[in-house]
Amino acid sequence: MKITDSPLPSSIAIVAETGVIPQATAHYRKRLSDLRGLFLDPAALEQRIRDENDPVCYENYAFNNGKTEGDIFFGTTIIYPGKVGLEYHLTRGHYHRKRDHAETYQALSGRGLVLFEREDGTTCTAELVPGKVTYIPPFWAHRSVNTGKVPLVFLWTCPVEAGHDYEALRGRGMRQVVVERDGCPCIENRP
Amino acid sequence: MKITDSPLPSSIAIVAETGVIPQATAHYRKRLSDLRGLFLDPAALEQRIRDENDPVCYENYAFNNGKTEGDIFFGTTIIYPGKVGLEYHLTRGHYHRKRDHAETYQALSGRGLVLFEREDGTTCTAELVPGKVTYIPPFWAHRSVNTGKVPLVFLWTCPVEAGHDYEALRGRGMRQVVVERDGCPCIENRP
Repeated sequence: MKITDSPLPSSIAIVAETGVIPQATAHYRKRLSDLRGLFLDPAALEQRIRDENDPVCYENYAFNNGKTEGDIFFGTTIIYPGKVGLEYHLTRGHYHRKRDHAETYQALSGRGLVLFEREDGTTCTAELVPGKVTYIPPFWAHRSVNTGKVPLVFLWTCPVEAGHDYEALRGRGMRQVVVERDGCPCIENRP
Repeated sequence: MKITDSPLPSSIAIVAETGVIPQATAHYRKRLSDLRGLFLDPAALEQRIRDENDPVCYENYAFNNGKTEGDIFFGTTIIYPGKVGLEYHLTRGHYHRKRDHAETYQALSGRGLVLFEREDGTTCTAELVPGKVTYIPPFWAHRSVNTGKVPLVFLWTCPVEAGHDYEALRGRGMRQVVVERDGCPCIENRP
């Protein structure tokens, strides 16, 4: 990139309660039907798709059209509250295409958990709550889960070249799941 | 980095009102005497150093000992309110050592401005207020200014390899200054 090709700096508004970024350069929604194969209870999933007209599970706003290595990519993910069977709403989860690239998450409103795992089989979790920055080190796949009653809105920030690899987790999900037991979120190994 | 060398993910608390990161891996303070040569009014600076026993102008907490390209480095800067002559408290300002590396700033409390300039002479400013993410694109030097009455606390996030080049601005500061006129912050060209 030449100096004169660099875009102007700007302050990008983010609505903490909804996650909306009015100046977003990209936006997508994932409905429950887009997440087949990820939940523990496929029958409960199909029932909610039918009964609730395939509700949105989460959506994503991103900022920055830059593509140069070293540039920064950020945006919001909004996971709506709800469960499929006992399991809380979640994102697909991904490794970075560049496995050694890191990221941060910051809850802006709501609360949840991040499930982590590495290709050597290690697992780990961290809470996603306002007032904390969740550091996602190199080599850790990450999936977010809304364990609350209101939308979980979080900001993510990573090097633009990190990329997403959803394939490595496709069809099997992650090794741990977050389910409701006696009204509380509980992290368990996938049966 | 090998997979097994990657640190555990964690959620790092940040106190929005003070900027303190209890788990910080680095911390420094800059007193007014550390900032000689940067303000418009050297006599006013020396007077405050004498009268106020060399007060702290700003401090910085950083998280992450990772050094691998693609890793993420984040932390807080706290600029205490005050003026040297007419000029508001500021940070030294820097280019990234890797000029094409970007960054984000997010005000957690207080309010201020970021002054930007490029090596081709272009200048620009952006506001630093809670609810907005300030995007610092590649090639832009950046300096923060507290224009409020309370500490300005902001979170910064950048690729760990971006680096800091303070030398390119040393002795001349930046092309624009923020001074108080009729009780309000005013952006002016350096005389």
